[in-house]
Amino acid sequence: MDYFERYEDLNVHKTMLEDIPRNSAYQKAIFDNKDSFNGKIVLDVGAGTGILSVFCAQAGAAKVYAVEASNIYKLAQEIIKENNVDHIVEVVHSKVEDLKLDGNEKVDIIISEWMGHYLLHEGMLDSVIYARDNFLRREGLLFPENVTLFSSPCSIPSLNESWANVNGVSMKSFGKQLKEAAMKEPLLIQINPDDVLSEPESVLWLNLHDVTLEDLESINFRHVTSASKDGRYQGICLWFTCTFPYYSTEPVILSTGPDDPKTHWLQTVISLPVDVDVEKGTPLAYDLVLKRSNTSLRKYTIEMTMLDPEEVEHPIYCGCHMTKCILAKAVIEKYDHGDFSMN
Amino acid sequence: MDYFERYEDLNVHKTMLEDIPRNSAYQKAIFDNKDSFNGKIVLDVGAGTGILSVFCAQAGAAKVYAVEASNIYKLAQEIIKENNVDHIVEVVHSKVEDLKLDGNEKVDIIISEWMGHYLLHEGMLDSVIYARDNFLRREGLLFPENVTLFSSPCSIPSLNESWANVNGVSMKSFGKQLKEAAMKEPLLIQINPDDVLSEPESVLWLNLHDVTLEDLESINFRHVTSASKDGRYQGICLWFTCTFPYYSTEPVILSTGPDDPKTHWLQTVISLPVDVDVEKGTPLAYDLVLKRSNTSLRKYTIEMTMLDPEEVEHPIYCGCHMTKCILAKAVIEKYDHGDFSMN
Repeated sequence: MDYFERYEDLNVHKTMLEDIPRNSAYQKAIFDNKDSFNGKIVLDVGAGTGILSVFCAQAGAAKVYAVEASNIYKLAQEIIKENNVDHIVEVVHSKVEDLKLDGNEKVDIIISEWMGHYLLHEGMLDSVIYARDNFLRREGLLFPENVTLFSSPCSIPSLNESWANVNGVSMKSFGKQLKEAAMKEPLLIQINPDDVLSEPESVLWLNLHDVTLEDLESINFRHVTSASKDGRYQGICLWFTCTFPYYSTEPVILSTGPDDPKTHWLQTVISLPVDVDVEKGTPLAYDLVLKRSNTSLRKYTIEMTMLDPEEVEHPIYCGCHMTKCILAKAVIEKYDHGDFSMN
Repeated sequence: MDYFERYEDLNVHKTMLEDIPRNSAYQKAIFDNKDSFNGKIVLDVGAGTGILSVFCAQAGAAKVYAVEASNIYKLAQEIIKENNVDHIVEVVHSKVEDLKLDGNEKVDIIISEWMGHYLLHEGMLDSVIYARDNFLRREGLLFPENVTLFSSPCSIPSLNESWANVNGVSMKSFGKQLKEAAMKEPLLIQINPDDVLSEPESVLWLNLHDVTLEDLESINFRHVTSASKDGRYQGICLWFTCTFPYYSTEPVILSTGPDDPKTHWLQTVISLPVDVDVEKGTPLAYDLVLKRSNTSLRKYTIEMTMLDPEEVEHPIYCGCHMTKCILAKAVIEKYDHGDFSMN
């Protein structure tokens, strides 16, 4: 009966099950759409402990395939039984890539909690794409349906300021080491909403109905914006949202940003080599490149390049204090005013 | 060498430096005893980032040897310089067992933060003993000076109750797995004071002036007590306190129990195979054996045996509801009353 040698193996699932915003978003997305689940066939990709499969059964699904490749599948079986849905949920110990359904049966809905840190890290989106291409019927539903990765410049006070005085001892050298470590390897921390320094911008928007593996190879993103307040620019903060299909109700959105209740994903933060003090209106520009690692398909390298705001094109509604953007803003406002006076 | 490579991880030091009760206890113990430090020679065993050495220099030490075997010694050097005490603190990159002091110099004070989980786990007490025997002058001081390991029966609601309902899904099988894992490997968690089920008892008391390696080989402890409240008996909780030398002031005690502010040591909890509902007065008895591991001197195996309270000797002031203890209590109270009426 001992499925796990070490507490640590279970702890990964414990962390996920204790993530209430995560559980609740899936539960609400499923329960708000009971009409879509009623009598339907569902495929749960990477079912883990089976909690999402139980939600689907509770929502009226006729059949749920809970596909799980790791040994936790045994525990999923017990949990399915414990919730009296073993006549609906079938736990399949398999990679979804090796799955065979009787008579090439198709499913009505694919559900999966595949997201990793900064959406793509150690995620299982590849498996969801495989499942979609091989098992989802035409017009079938995907939970979640689309996802967005966001980025914003930010302060990281925990990396620096707090090390200036530790019980009366200056630990700036320690803060510097942490910062250098954080440049080599992104930090997973929860950023205070006050430490976000500009309007976030979407790095990537994926509709799960048409995303391909090629789309995930390399993601290039340029962000030209301006500081929305005075502050210390110390890094770039990444997070994601997931939107679920909706019909009769408001959309359910699972959002993992600095403004949202803390989830186990936290935010992913890339530290700058030097701190930059910025004022409201200071132009900020950087490039981000996320590239699949050669050694592990489940990992990405993230490269961030700070750009000279003088040398990049600014968006039309840029709020920065560079002359060209102040002029552009004045022109736009004139037009807006013109439109208004014509009505 | 594995041990020191692990400690190079900056995050370990970050966790320790962020442990304010830890830092503050050492700082207060040192600053309250400036007379003892003034003009003295100090040896800091396992100096890490050097924070304790800086405290000693700030307290007036003439010389501090900050001995650190891992590569973090380089960072300690920077921190010593950053705090302008490099004329006092000398960082020595060495195991204390390999240390040579000029002309067999002796030190007046040994300071060390050597404690691990349940005091002894991955601790460095052996190194402190070596340092004491080889470098401390007669009548020299040890910071801390004595340590106590405590044990108490407890509830562990996080292991069980919370798994009965996760977003409407029964996850008892998951809780059971967690419990089984926790029986093989102690849990590190912060226990709620309300979940402590009896008066704690000291498993071990060590005076650092005379503790020997032999004392640390195997620790046998029997606890016969009674539940101080109604509750669910689910495990044994271990924690420690450290007491520092004191002269002019109150003693400084670093305490890491359920009643104390949370430290990075948390408490160490051993789970019982089955939950036992107890009422106030229910007798509770168990044996604990802590034995040094054969494979790693820095680790211990902990064996816990539940005992039949009928078959063990109870302490004189046992508060349990067994007939012999109720009778004993009545006799004692009669004597106490007799004493009182004679005054």
